[in-house]
Amino acid sequence: MNTNSSNMMALAPNTSKKRETVCIFGTGDFGRALGHKMIQCGYHVVYGSRSTQISNLVPKDAEVLSHAEAAQKAAIVIIAIQRQHYNFLTPLAEILRGKVVVDISNNLKLNQYPESNAEYLAQLLPGARVVKAFNTVSAWALQSGALDASRQVFVCGDDTEAKEMVMNIVRALGLTPLDQGSLLAAQEIENYPLQLFPMWKFPIFLSLGLTAFFFFYCLALDVIYTYIYEHNNFSFFIAMTIPNRICPVVALILLGLVYLPGVLAAIIQLYRGTKYRRFPDWLDKWMLCRKQLGLIALAFASLHAVFTLASPLRSFVKWRNAKPIISQALNNKTEPLDTTNAWLSDSYLALGIIGFFFFVLVGITSLPSVSNSVNWREFRFVQSKLGYLTLILCTAHTLVYGGKWFLSPTAYKWYLPNIYMLSLVVPCAVLVVKFVLIFPCVDKPLTQIRQGWERNPKSSEQSNYIINKSAV
Amino acid sequence: MNTNSSNMMALAPNTSKKRETVCIFGTGDFGRALGHKMIQCGYHVVYGSRSTQISNLVPKDAEVLSHAEAAQKAAIVIIAIQRQHYNFLTPLAEILRGKVVVDISNNLKLNQYPESNAEYLAQLLPGARVVKAFNTVSAWALQSGALDASRQVFVCGDDTEAKEMVMNIVRALGLTPLDQGSLLAAQEIENYPLQLFPMWKFPIFLSLGLTAFFFFYCLALDVIYTYIYEHNNFSFFIAMTIPNRICPVVALILLGLVYLPGVLAAIIQLYRGTKYRRFPDWLDKWMLCRKQLGLIALAFASLHAVFTLASPLRSFVKWRNAKPIISQALNNKTEPLDTTNAWLSDSYLALGIIGFFFFVLVGITSLPSVSNSVNWREFRFVQSKLGYLTLILCTAHTLVYGGKWFLSPTAYKWYLPNIYMLSLVVPCAVLVVKFVLIFPCVDKPLTQIRQGWERNPKSSEQSNYIINKSAV
Amino acid sequence: MNTNSSNMMALAPNTSKKRETVCIFGTGDFGRALGHKMIQCGYHVVYGSRSTQISNLVPKDAEVLSHAEAAQKAAIVIIAIQRQHYNFLTPLAEILRGKVVVDISNNLKLNQYPESNAEYLAQLLPGARVVKAFNTVSAWALQSGALDASRQVFVCGDDTEAKEMVMNIVRALGLTPLDQGSLLAAQEIENYPLQLFPMWKFPIFLSLGLTAFFFFYCLALDVIYTYIYEHNNFSFFIAMTIPNRICPVVALILLGLVYLPGVLAAIIQLYRGTKYRRFPDWLDKWMLCRKQLGLIALAFASLHAVFTLASPLRSFVKWRNAKPIISQALNNKTEPLDTTNAWLSDSYLALGIIGFFFFVLVGITSLPSVSNSVNWREFRFVQSKLGYLTLILCTAHTLVYGGKWFLSPTAYKWYLPNIYMLSLVVPCAVLVVKFVLIFPCVDKPLTQIRQGWERNPKSSEQSNYIINKSAV
Repeated sequence: MNTNSSNMMALAPNTSKKRETVCIFGTGDFGRALGHKMIQCGYHVVYGSRSTQISNLVPKDAEVLSHAEAAQKAAIVIIAIQRQHYNFLTPLAEILRGKVVVDISNNLKLNQYPESNAEYLAQLLPGARVVKAFNTVSAWALQSGALDASRQVFVCGDDTEAKEMVMNIVRALGLTPLDQGSLLAAQEIENYPLQLFPMWKFPIFLSLGLTAFFFFYCLALDVIYTYIYEHNNFSFFIAMTIPNRICPVVALILLGLVYLPGVLAAIIQLYRGTKYRRFPDWLDKWMLCRKQLGLIALAFASLHAVFTLASPLRSFVKWRNAKPIISQALNNKTEPLDTTNAWLSDSYLALGIIGFFFFVLVGITSLPSVSNSVNWREFRFVQSKLGYLTLILCTAHTLVYGGKWFLSPTAYKWYLPNIYMLSLVVPCAVLVVKFVLIFPCVDKPLTQIRQGWERNPKSSEQSNYIINKSAV
Repeated sequence: MNTNSSNMMALAPNTSKKRETVCIFGTGDFGRALGHKMIQCGYHVVYGSRSTQISNLVPKDAEVLSHAEAAQKAAIVIIAIQRQHYNFLTPLAEILRGKVVVDISNNLKLNQYPESNAEYLAQLLPGARVVKAFNTVSAWALQSGALDASRQVFVCGDDTEAKEMVMNIVRALGLTPLDQGSLLAAQEIENYPLQLFPMWKFPIFLSLGLTAFFFFYCLALDVIYTYIYEHNNFSFFIAMTIPNRICPVVALILLGLVYLPGVLAAIIQLYRGTKYRRFPDWLDKWMLCRKQLGLIALAFASLHAVFTLASPLRSFVKWRNAKPIISQALNNKTEPLDTTNAWLSDSYLALGIIGFFFFVLVGITSLPSVSNSVNWREFRFVQSKLGYLTLILCTAHTLVYGGKWFLSPTAYKWYLPNIYMLSLVVPCAVLVVKFVLIFPCVDKPLTQIRQGWERNPKSSEQSNYIINKSAV
Repeated sequence: MNTNSSNMMALAPNTSKKRETVCIFGTGDFGRALGHKMIQCGYHVVYGSRSTQISNLVPKDAEVLSHAEAAQKAAIVIIAIQRQHYNFLTPLAEILRGKVVVDISNNLKLNQYPESNAEYLAQLLPGARVVKAFNTVSAWALQSGALDASRQVFVCGDDTEAKEMVMNIVRALGLTPLDQGSLLAAQEIENYPLQLFPMWKFPIFLSLGLTAFFFFYCLALDVIYTYIYEHNNFSFFIAMTIPNRICPVVALILLGLVYLPGVLAAIIQLYRGTKYRRFPDWLDKWMLCRKQLGLIALAFASLHAVFTLASPLRSFVKWRNAKPIISQALNNKTEPLDTTNAWLSDSYLALGIIGFFFFVLVGITSLPSVSNSVNWREFRFVQSKLGYLTLILCTAHTLVYGGKWFLSPTAYKWYLPNIYMLSLVVPCAVLVVKFVLIFPCVDKPLTQIRQGWERNPKSSEQSNYIINKSAV
């Protein structure tokens, strides 16, 4: 195998080229991993340590000196020490004056301290040019070269030249530096690696809650009801039938919930006569997680599509399809084609397929690289126009699927509606309100409001700032 | 929900950290939105306005002064005024001398003025360091924090330091600055937000035209012909059967049209004996929208795949499949397996599936982030080699699908061929010509020409520049 | 069609705006293409050439002078000459002193020379500010404007100001410059365009080998055995049945091979009691191509999904499904539903669908733009947690598919197991070992080792450096 790929390049030692000397304070795991990597990439590394005795853990080609001696040997000092031990650096402030001091620390919790570690370090060392970097890279990734997710190194600092020096080291290690501006960005950079899909939490819990609710609803109506009243054991419905009922229902409800906050916001703006008053907090948060809601809806819709396409493979479906054929053969007759049924079945399938197609299209534009390559107008077109088209098609798909069953009393076991009827509530409400909102008499004032016009400029502005104050 | 995601970060006011003062000229919608956002991010904002009376619309924490006073308070002046009012700035030229003046304006039409707004501003204010920025961000996105599509802020300007100052503000607002070079790039940046998929227009209209043509063709042959001559009402074919005939046909024709211009270009180059003469304009444009044609072909192919996989769910198909089974049962016999039929049906399905698989593979490499991570040689390999493999497989799929029907007279209703026969014309022509082009006796001179060799250097060069001149 | 897209922008000549003069040494194909493009973008181009007679090939608006004269006219000199002719530049060293000299050359082989062409050039011209750029762009792409894959131009150099000047030209030509740091990066940049999916070679050959082996295995058992002992001609199995047996088997084995090296690495670390000793070379390489193995496994799994969903369309399957229906009709009875069978068939389908769903999810996070937008913790969660969930679900899918056949002697034709049984070996082994590794008594020391703890610090460290030395 050719080892000269860009992935492996960074692993290969090119010791023939000597780069500058870099000092690392601290011989912990990350300090050692970083030092090892830098030596591989041609840097000369000097460790600053309290004791020069534990040198057997440190890369062999590195020197180990006292902190003061080590710092004097290099223009760049990397602090691989935890924040609670930063105090010991104060006596070294004079030696570190003018040097590039790199803070690579992370915290255990989000916003653990009032100021970021890098800003705290800058306070301790007034003369040093503090740069924040490397905190998003793991020691394991540095050592193993498995740098798929962590190629990006966020760098920030107040001194442009110092930042450039650190970014050159980042590039030399085979990583991608991203300039995040001044040291004020350090807090954000330190919080970044602690997150685990923060924007996804609410949408995922919501969809899991809906799934659980509809699972028990279906279990009662499809398995338990059938067992009690018809003495059929359809427990195997749990594997395919019930999931394939839940998925489209959750997908349609979530898709409705993507467009509901936009409609609510329009009503609030129309009612208030201004766009300069802040929305309620729940609406703000809801609007910010619409993308996540939509993508989870797409996941459920995809599962529904595959479950449906796989249904002819099920032995239950084969058995159910064989029954009418055998009975026709036994009764010695061939039933003619029911054209109404053919229309219904074909159009509900076609609506579903085309709706799903547009849904996937909208989903593809949510990929970061695609949404970055379209402009605002194009993005709005896809997310708003194509999104509403998807909602209309999927709602129509469900309505046609229901067909004549809406009014049939046998569809209501235990007087409860089938779950696809429940799924129609949110999207139908959104579509009806949206339909009202595009009437010219409603659309015109709304457009004016969104362009900055206000019905009662004075009063609204005041209440705005009252609200903002209480929110801050 | 955890609010410390990078998306929401930009919304959170971190007023504890004071940044520099920024001046905004103009209290229109965008000026107010930008000022509000900057105050949230710790900047001190001073508005320059003709009248200091309309201050109730302006964010409360901002000062409102006259233009001259406001400009003197800040090193950066953002001009949130429309181009037609730029004249009023000429008296302020002296005050703005040396300051960073940020042009954020957009036009209503592409190339509305001979020079870009930013260059016009630079002419009006000779001493100012003009930077173009923020024009791709909408006021709505700034206020709502819904910055999915508009995180990228194109920045250009002739003064590097001024540009860096503006890029720091962009980063502080939670946006991503993209340095586009000198102020000459301003025209392009101003045109950018006015576009709505310009490269997609021709491919989309072409595919819609083809779809409409084939729809009426199929309607005539499958529904009207059947109704007239066989007295069957197959109107429900409109929902599923006809779309599933149109989709593969349009997909195959578009895929052929992706590779046709390359073949035409090779013929033209061989005929002319040089690559230094410009292609006809239509061929140039056609070659530039091949990616879009290919992606639309992929969309139609995907629809065809899903329509086909969903067909066993149709009540018409169930009824049609049941007929031979019932007749076998009634006639008391079991028909043996027709091996030829099994071979035909299996191989046409397998060819289609593998062709679609490679088509999707080629489509994935069209994603911006994937095509950016491969080099030119790899991209050519996928787009050319795998693309032709896809074309061969899809053409073979259609040929095997046709099978023995090509020569059967019953396949020609009203003496018209079935549409899958029409779809074979373009791809077969491309494949035949391409087959000729890879013969060594043709391939060798073509390769030489593409490496810069010319049959008649002198004459071709002259005509080249005559052609270029007339084109300019 | 609107021609003002960002793709076509770079093609449009904006000759009204004059930029600085650029000198190009060499009138070969790339030199001419680059000069033509630069003239279109407003630069004044001067060619340096041995003979000023061959000017008819050169763009008409360009001057052609001797090397020395041309170099004196511009601050930037682009060397469009092959490395073996660089010697002729030594007499010009004095003229090129202080100028920005751009090396755009590529080699024919990886690491053809001990030092990169750009570094060699810098040695020849000690006073010049050498910048490496443009080598990843092809002449054809520059001329045709088909810049999809080659928009990125890697730039490196030791002089920041020189680099910035070159990056401005790159931007003016409509390309995207990527700063790769100092001139030490030139070797990597020169190797880049010569690669053809280096990381993919081993995974692709492995999967093709597995596919070939299982193809002949299936051919023997399904076609030849049936032909010899049952006198049935099932040769058409080659088209659909056998591919659909091979795909899931190869997919599952490859997926197992993705997680096997991680498990082996854990065992090695536990055995050695340290993480600071280098893994064997084969394990290192294996770990680095896990992403590629996983994506190929996903491709095979996708093919399996589509083959399976398409199976109801096969005429063989229709014939096979009709047989029991006809026999029921002829025997005048309706068989009741076999609930055990329904459970088995539904749960194996459901496991497969959900496993495939998670597999696709893991695959999507492998897209560069998605993996760049998640942090290390999120990436590990998806790749490790969701990856193992996928492996468990897919293994369970295969186990339930096997169902009661494992113990049935009729499943062993020629005493050979069915291939799905072979596919279970690797994933089951991985899951069993992983299950052992998550026991607290094993997990605790492993976690300690991975955080830097060592069982025998002294001895392991020494052997580490002995090993490392022999490896270097």
